[in-house]
Amino acid sequence: MMDSPPGVADLLGVLAYAELTAFLRFAEDATRHAPSLADQAALGGLAAAEYAHFQLLRDRIASLGVDPEEAMAPFVGPLDAWHAQTAPGDWLETLVKAYAGTGIALDFYREAATRVDDETRDLVEEVLADEGRSQFAVERVGAAIKEDPRQSGRLALWARRLVGEALSQGQQVALARPELALLLVSEGDDITRMFARLTEAHGRRMAALGLPSTP
Amino acid sequence: MMDSPPGVADLLGVLAYAELTAFLRFAEDATRHAPSLADQAALGGLAAAEYAHFQLLRDRIASLGVDPEEAMAPFVGPLDAWHAQTAPGDWLETLVKAYAGTGIALDFYREAATRVDDETRDLVEEVLADEGRSQFAVERVGAAIKEDPRQSGRLALWARRLVGEALSQGQQVALARPELALLLVSEGDDITRMFARLTEAHGRRMAALGLPSTP
Repeated sequence: MMDSPPGVADLLGVLAYAELTAFLRFAEDATRHAPSLADQAALGGLAAAEYAHFQLLRDRIASLGVDPEEAMAPFVGPLDAWHAQTAPGDWLETLVKAYAGTGIALDFYREAATRVDDETRDLVEEVLADEGRSQFAVERVGAAIKEDPRQSGRLALWARRLVGEALSQGQQVALARPELALLLVSEGDDITRMFARLTEAHGRRMAALGLPSTP
Repeated sequence: MMDSPPGVADLLGVLAYAELTAFLRFAEDATRHAPSLADQAALGGLAAAEYAHFQLLRDRIASLGVDPEEAMAPFVGPLDAWHAQTAPGDWLETLVKAYAGTGIALDFYREAATRVDDETRDLVEEVLADEGRSQFAVERVGAAIKEDPRQSGRLALWARRLVGEALSQGQQVALARPELALLLVSEGDDITRMFARLTEAHGRRMAALGLPSTP
């Protein structure tokens, strides 16, 4: 078994706060924008799953002898800023954000998975097993675009903004937390290439939603 | 095994919507009022548990061949009105509301437990097993009152308002849904006496928080 490399507390901290705040924001978006109780419940289910991931991460941080609040603290600013810049204006934007945001987070878990100790990897795999939870968003957005194809342009722009703001916050985090950035890039790789991979994966997800990559 | 008596779909519907909306409101209150990430996480944990209860109730409703949205629909108005009338103004009000609201709901489950079919009773017992989850609120409110005893008067008034508004909504629901009301009262009992028991239990919980029953 490998020891926790430097940067693991940062990695768990950023993921923990991302899950905690996604839980709270998705719940808020469900209250504000869901057009029916079934839709509220569907997005609520995704939110509740984020809370369960948060708990796993918090417990893992504590088991490393690190205070979870301290581990999360450096990432509160950038993640709150991302959510503030990407507050959805309606239900379709809410769904695209839930799907895109969850997808970016899962890519980030996958990037991290190969570079951490065994116990952290087990946790990462447990979270990744939950991947299908945002699938309901694909079906609902797909149906909405089929019904009214004019939605597709503005949602494609929205999806671009979501990933653009995420990369911009991500670059600042990488500069401020060099150990975390080092953990996320393998030898011969660099952080820019990792961000390019995330952007490509985002594009594939947006295609799955039925959104063009160039609006 | 007893068949579902009339009113059970109503009972499960009111509880399901109460859990769904508590989940969403507590998440919102955590975002708005929690003074630290640990507090946000603690109230978030209670909210996530409410979502898990909602899922149990929704599945049970569906297994009775009833549409969960239809079962919840009659109770959306009264429960939304209760939450609108009792939006907490700060973190201590949030905690008292979470503890009082969860407590009233659990009393309601207990009243119901003796009068339903076996499968519904299993579900009720599963929810009741989660009772300790709002205990963190008792500790935090107790500590705040110890530190500043002047908080106790206004929080006692707040607790009264919480239960007063709940009874007022409850009476309207009992009038509008006679089968539900009948389910909740045993022979020789009446709904007023049930409300009196709920009020007494509320008073005991407020005493546990360190709040006087007469402010």
